[in-house]
Amino acid sequence: MSQYKHTVNYYETDKMGIVHHSNYIRWMEEARVDFLNKIGWGFDKLESLGMVSPVTAVECKYKLPTRFPEEVFIDAHVEEFRGVRLKLKYIMKNSEGQVVCEAASEHCFLDANGRVIKMERDYPELFKLLQPEE
Amino acid sequence: MSQYKHTVNYYETDKMGIVHHSNYIRWMEEARVDFLNKIGWGFDKLESLGMVSPVTAVECKYKLPTRFPEEVFIDAHVEEFRGVRLKLKYIMKNSEGQVVCEAASEHCFLDANGRVIKMERDYPELFKLLQPEE
Amino acid sequence: MSQYKHTVNYYETDKMGIVHHSNYIRWMEEARVDFLNKIGWGFDKLESLGMVSPVTAVECKYKLPTRFPEEVFIDAHVEEFRGVRLKLKYIMKNSEGQVVCEAASEHCFLDANGRVIKMERDYPELFKLLQPEE
Amino acid sequence: MSQYKHTVNYYETDKMGIVHHSNYIRWMEEARVDFLNKIGWGFDKLESLGMVSPVTAVECKYKLPTRFPEEVFIDAHVEEFRGVRLKLKYIMKNSEGQVVCEAASEHCFLDANGRVIKMERDYPELFKLLQPEE
Repeated sequence: MSQYKHTVNYYETDKMGIVHHSNYIRWMEEARVDFLNKIGWGFDKLESLGMVSPVTAVECKYKLPTRFPEEVFIDAHVEEFRGVRLKLKYIMKNSEGQVVCEAASEHCFLDANGRVIKMERDYPELFKLLQPEE
Repeated sequence: MSQYKHTVNYYETDKMGIVHHSNYIRWMEEARVDFLNKIGWGFDKLESLGMVSPVTAVECKYKLPTRFPEEVFIDAHVEEFRGVRLKLKYIMKNSEGQVVCEAASEHCFLDANGRVIKMERDYPELFKLLQPEE
Repeated sequence: MSQYKHTVNYYETDKMGIVHHSNYIRWMEEARVDFLNKIGWGFDKLESLGMVSPVTAVECKYKLPTRFPEEVFIDAHVEEFRGVRLKLKYIMKNSEGQVVCEAASEHCFLDANGRVIKMERDYPELFKLLQPEE
Repeated sequence: MSQYKHTVNYYETDKMGIVHHSNYIRWMEEARVDFLNKIGWGFDKLESLGMVSPVTAVECKYKLPTRFPEEVFIDAHVEEFRGVRLKLKYIMKNSEGQVVCEAASEHCFLDANGRVIKMERDYPELFKLLQPEE
């Protein structure tokens, strides 16, 4: 499991005085980028191999509001990956340890021609790294 | 059912050349604002009554990419509302009629003191307007 | 002179209850896209000719706040274009006719190899259309 | 002078493959927040004293593109403050030390009633801290 810290920006707030809900989707991306860097397969490496990894689904359950300028701690981990569809989970907590958001995203991996990559065959090392922890 | 049109902005694209997935969450809000206006209960009316309506959950399934400067047509409708939790569904189509995204959001309604509003009792007209169509 | 209308989105507000200042930069782009469409040289046409037109400078003077869900009317016009650097001006007004923002942007035009395009020689029609009105 | 580091996010890129120019305005805010924290007068302190500090003008000159996932180093400093209008300058550099953007912003300080604060009289400590370095 990988932990990423995001500090809320003023421009992420809305007129309710709290963070606008759309920003959590962006924080998931930040945490995902961080997670891939930590396992040694950053976006730049994926792209240098001609891979793109579009988002096919997202979901967020908002539990508590967050406010400028607090810190949000995001745990990202693989929930499931059998080789085609990568399912990631995100638990976001505030500095008091309260869960503020539970989220998930799904991704596929495409090669330069837009074809789905067979990860276990073509990139066995990455396939293994993307297996969910017990 | 209410239809809203969003024209993709250049600043909504990302380096994949397509619309960044976070923007669909914002388009859902645009369509929701439009829907509430059309039933005569715009955000400004809600706020003048001391109501706020935070988003408690969102989900998006991305079916096809969208690109600058295409038009996206969003149908928003109530899926379920028994008085506390409003569930909205969104079907987004491109100009060829293809579904590009299927989405949903959930909302509650709070009064000025942060208490959950009992919609059927306190705002029976709005309660009725928010019933799903047969 | 070209007029473009932007309706303020909820997600463009910040915790001061007004539109966050960064959004005006995006509205300038919306008005610019609209202006180029109206003179028949939309971004898609420019890109199909292998042209890109990066922003080299922007400035905004904020006169009055704007709020959700008001409408903002943006007049965009060419201030100067001698063939290399395009200078655009933007006057943004609210529905009462008050100026809310005065802005400017500068652009160059590059070909597919990143070289500055000599507009008067290579695209005389566009060069002429981009001359400031008397 | 205060230095702030921003790591470019994927969602900040556009279809040209580089960071969209509107994001630099947001990075200026991040660097400003960081600067005010470092001098001990963070936004939260200003707000707890009933002060707001709206942006009255911004400008950016874009020198070189930036790309995901590079780091951008932002030096923020006071250019001028005689008590009413605060002028800040920002120099943004990439990791090779090249200037990618030169920017400026102007701000005023308002009290809870929307009146301009006389900083030298009412907050002499902050007034002094906001004097430009020699």
